[in-house]
Amino acid sequence: MQTNGHTRIIALLNGPDRPGLVAKAAGWIFERGGNVHHADQHRDGEAGIFFQRLEWLPNGDASAEAGEFERFAADELGMRAQIALSSEQPRVVVMVSKIEHCFHDIVLRFTSGEMPGQIAGVISNHTDLEAATRNYGLTFHHVPVTKANKDEAEDRQLAIVHEAQADLVIMARYMQVLSDRFLKELGCPVINIHHSFLPAFAGGKPYHQAFARGVKLIGATAHYATADLDEGPIIAQDVSRVSHRHGPAELVRRGKDLEKTVFAQAVRWHLEHRILVYNNKTVVFD
Amino acid sequence: MQTNGHTRIIALLNGPDRPGLVAKAAGWIFERGGNVHHADQHRDGEAGIFFQRLEWLPNGDASAEAGEFERFAADELGMRAQIALSSEQPRVVVMVSKIEHCFHDIVLRFTSGEMPGQIAGVISNHTDLEAATRNYGLTFHHVPVTKANKDEAEDRQLAIVHEAQADLVIMARYMQVLSDRFLKELGCPVINIHHSFLPAFAGGKPYHQAFARGVKLIGATAHYATADLDEGPIIAQDVSRVSHRHGPAELVRRGKDLEKTVFAQAVRWHLEHRILVYNNKTVVFD
Amino acid sequence: MQTNGHTRIIALLNGPDRPGLVAKAAGWIFERGGNVHHADQHRDGEAGIFFQRLEWLPNGDASAEAGEFERFAADELGMRAQIALSSEQPRVVVMVSKIEHCFHDIVLRFTSGEMPGQIAGVISNHTDLEAATRNYGLTFHHVPVTKANKDEAEDRQLAIVHEAQADLVIMARYMQVLSDRFLKELGCPVINIHHSFLPAFAGGKPYHQAFARGVKLIGATAHYATADLDEGPIIAQDVSRVSHRHGPAELVRRGKDLEKTVFAQAVRWHLEHRILVYNNKTVVFD
Amino acid sequence: MQTNGHTRIIALLNGPDRPGLVAKAAGWIFERGGNVHHADQHRDGEAGIFFQRLEWLPNGDASAEAGEFERFAADELGMRAQIALSSEQPRVVVMVSKIEHCFHDIVLRFTSGEMPGQIAGVISNHTDLEAATRNYGLTFHHVPVTKANKDEAEDRQLAIVHEAQADLVIMARYMQVLSDRFLKELGCPVINIHHSFLPAFAGGKPYHQAFARGVKLIGATAHYATADLDEGPIIAQDVSRVSHRHGPAELVRRGKDLEKTVFAQAVRWHLEHRILVYNNKTVVFD
Repeated sequence: MQTNGHTRIIALLNGPDRPGLVAKAAGWIFERGGNVHHADQHRDGEAGIFFQRLEWLPNGDASAEAGEFERFAADELGMRAQIALSSEQPRVVVMVSKIEHCFHDIVLRFTSGEMPGQIAGVISNHTDLEAATRNYGLTFHHVPVTKANKDEAEDRQLAIVHEAQADLVIMARYMQVLSDRFLKELGCPVINIHHSFLPAFAGGKPYHQAFARGVKLIGATAHYATADLDEGPIIAQDVSRVSHRHGPAELVRRGKDLEKTVFAQAVRWHLEHRILVYNNKTVVFD
Repeated sequence: MQTNGHTRIIALLNGPDRPGLVAKAAGWIFERGGNVHHADQHRDGEAGIFFQRLEWLPNGDASAEAGEFERFAADELGMRAQIALSSEQPRVVVMVSKIEHCFHDIVLRFTSGEMPGQIAGVISNHTDLEAATRNYGLTFHHVPVTKANKDEAEDRQLAIVHEAQADLVIMARYMQVLSDRFLKELGCPVINIHHSFLPAFAGGKPYHQAFARGVKLIGATAHYATADLDEGPIIAQDVSRVSHRHGPAELVRRGKDLEKTVFAQAVRWHLEHRILVYNNKTVVFD
Repeated sequence: MQTNGHTRIIALLNGPDRPGLVAKAAGWIFERGGNVHHADQHRDGEAGIFFQRLEWLPNGDASAEAGEFERFAADELGMRAQIALSSEQPRVVVMVSKIEHCFHDIVLRFTSGEMPGQIAGVISNHTDLEAATRNYGLTFHHVPVTKANKDEAEDRQLAIVHEAQADLVIMARYMQVLSDRFLKELGCPVINIHHSFLPAFAGGKPYHQAFARGVKLIGATAHYATADLDEGPIIAQDVSRVSHRHGPAELVRRGKDLEKTVFAQAVRWHLEHRILVYNNKTVVFD
Repeated sequence: MQTNGHTRIIALLNGPDRPGLVAKAAGWIFERGGNVHHADQHRDGEAGIFFQRLEWLPNGDASAEAGEFERFAADELGMRAQIALSSEQPRVVVMVSKIEHCFHDIVLRFTSGEMPGQIAGVISNHTDLEAATRNYGLTFHHVPVTKANKDEAEDRQLAIVHEAQADLVIMARYMQVLSDRFLKELGCPVINIHHSFLPAFAGGKPYHQAFARGVKLIGATAHYATADLDEGPIIAQDVSRVSHRHGPAELVRRGKDLEKTVFAQAVRWHLEHRILVYNNKTVVFD
């Protein structure tokens, strides 16, 4: 891991709340001549858990100090620390089916430099987006999925993700359910975009459900994928106003804009190391 | 029903879609020298239903012409018409418990002249808001409700609403479930405000449910009350952004502002004769 | 102009308000066996102007009936009518500089079939987006613009637009001011996206202006281009919440999402023939 | 100043950025056995200013420790500290004219216990709200203002505010301009609600300006009052969607809901000691 004089350390801490955590962590950095750029914390009083995000420019070698801080957090603060360096470019694998709006939107954000990370490959169960993927200069993996070959297909997907050394998998409207086994063996988080304001309209065809119920707002929800479909920790949500004039097709069209921005927001927050998960919820230090 | 030269007729029409409905209705008004102020229509293509709202200044007596139009709509258009005159001030009975924000907000909108209607009485199962009600110059009816006296209490409520000649009952965070029998015998619609973005978090303590699920938006929903609690036709909804920093108490506080504006919006639309109900949904000609 | 049995006629009418306009127009269509799909109207009481949008499926040849209706509107209603057929695919020329987010977003909406129109060419004063344009299968015209060659460059742009038989020009963050002469000789409307909530922060560097003023919301505005820069009729606007934490660079990044959706919304409304302009304002029949 | 074992200290710090500020402040509190409930900070890199909000439960007497911390901040951190105790109930004087929606809304938030403060009196240049004020159990001061008596009237207002020992003055749609002299001699901040999305439509009749310009969103802005009318530091803003259907009267009506919530939000943030002002902008630790 190569670092230079501009590399910042980012630490996401969580653990049992106790007095002096802020003072000790800040003191540790200050003593080593570090310059804190951002600091934010949260305390869940009921659960008795303390959360903190620290981002600082160390005086010495970032990589070495990051390791020392992780041990300090565990030994002195009793906190679990996830550490990242600002010089890293997290590697992201995109999973997609045929629906293309989230795919193009998120890829363009990476290629234009808007996202702090890099796309390490695209996996699809269809070939519709193969040409577009190659036009973007990205590697395309076609992994067809059927009821019969599901296990085998997931094996191939796992191999691709592992070979790509991915830090994150994102599902840009990938229309297949991921198995419990897949999520366990993956070794990195998965972000999914669901086209409704969860927990309303979980499951399939949410815009049709929304139309049938006559709601006046439609939504989109980005969440970490878990074995319980559409039940994972929510990262970002947004809604848009609709009326009786909008049939299911129009809701689908309007929903696309929500899906794009909510999905991108969640992916960005993750890549900027702003999200902590606990009790099936998220703390987002935005 | 007293009318004068400025009284407008408002007609809400619905029925099977067929060619020429707009032409015939507009032609009927034009032939009698009427001046259409607003006209809006909607066509549910799947259900084959046509909806229209017409508001016009008749050349002659509004009350007489309103009756003629109703017969014309039934006989010539095959449409059901709900007719109102702009000179009417619909009579509204407010039901409330102890929670006061929606109560004050909606009453002040009536007393300041912002609402096209008048409050014909306040019913509460508690006495907390008795003094405030009288300060507003309104009649207060205390009807305690217990499990044991529920039927009897509803009889008293029905008598009060009927004696007040109410055109509408509004539940400003009234914390008792209305029975099927009550709704049937009431003889006028009921608007309720639910403190969540329905259908998410139906039932009790929605803000606690929202907190537990970790949603990033909280909402409020105004709907017509039906025997199926929280399942009635949705009139208006809105949401507000929240974060991990907001505990249930803070969600409750933030939700109050949503509840006030969403509730008032729904009551206003109803009093302005802008809402048609079908298939457990609403068409709102806003 | 080729039409078939599914071609709908869309008429945008405006003119002096007088009794019977709705009845006469609807009657005319009904007599010819037409089936009205959508109808919406607006009356500016102060200005005494009536606006209407009618969309109907004619019984006979759409092209012929469209012409007849235009004459009927002028002769019998005293209204100016803009007529379109649903079978037409309006031709759009895109002008762009180096900033790419609006460009990709709008082009992808056309190529994916989300927009009812077709791109007839891309003009840029830079070559940065030449390869991307060709990847989309579109024609790229490089027209460098300097102070010295401004007139000549506009001549070339005019020639390109005229040769492309464009119905609309859209400025996807095109960073040059269009001259009065250019707009007059263009012969079709121009839609521009401005990166602020107009009329706040007109002119250059609006996000820096917004940061300096310390506003809590940033916005984007799509408007028809006129000789008075940033003063044309507003079509669509939206805003996004920001805080003291967001410096100018972050405002720029967040603004991009607003610009994309607001721009696309305005272009879509125009292509669907939903916009009427009067008194430097728009009526949008959405 | 009476404190007990539950009284928290709130410190708003600002001053030149330098390393170790967080560590030193947190260390100071920790050494004295304090328990930090909330901590948030902000760094304006360009201006080189550091801002922090600390809220903690001290181990000893809150009042004494508050004073010590203030000296520590000045001497050791080189920071200006504004200190408050959670047991204090800031005293607020309301200024109002005839328009009543903001008045009722904000007063009800105080009387219902939603606001952490108390109303110490109401000043109006009209008597329209005198009865309502007394019904709320509040003191009403009628101070008529004319061109001729402006100075004298401000003297009376100043005397009332000073006698009420007010910590804050809030203008609930008070329709008179406050003089530079008044603001200087007042000795406490003033929060005003402006009925537009500033800086758009500063000055009078903003809804009419908005209608004339044809904007698609209307707004409201709460800001600290300064000698430059409508130019003070912005605290809170919000907007609401409007269309060509809404004339000035309808914009006024819709704007009222925005004004109420934005005004209340700003007053609440101030009373919770969440706002720091610098460079005519605000840092809001929400």
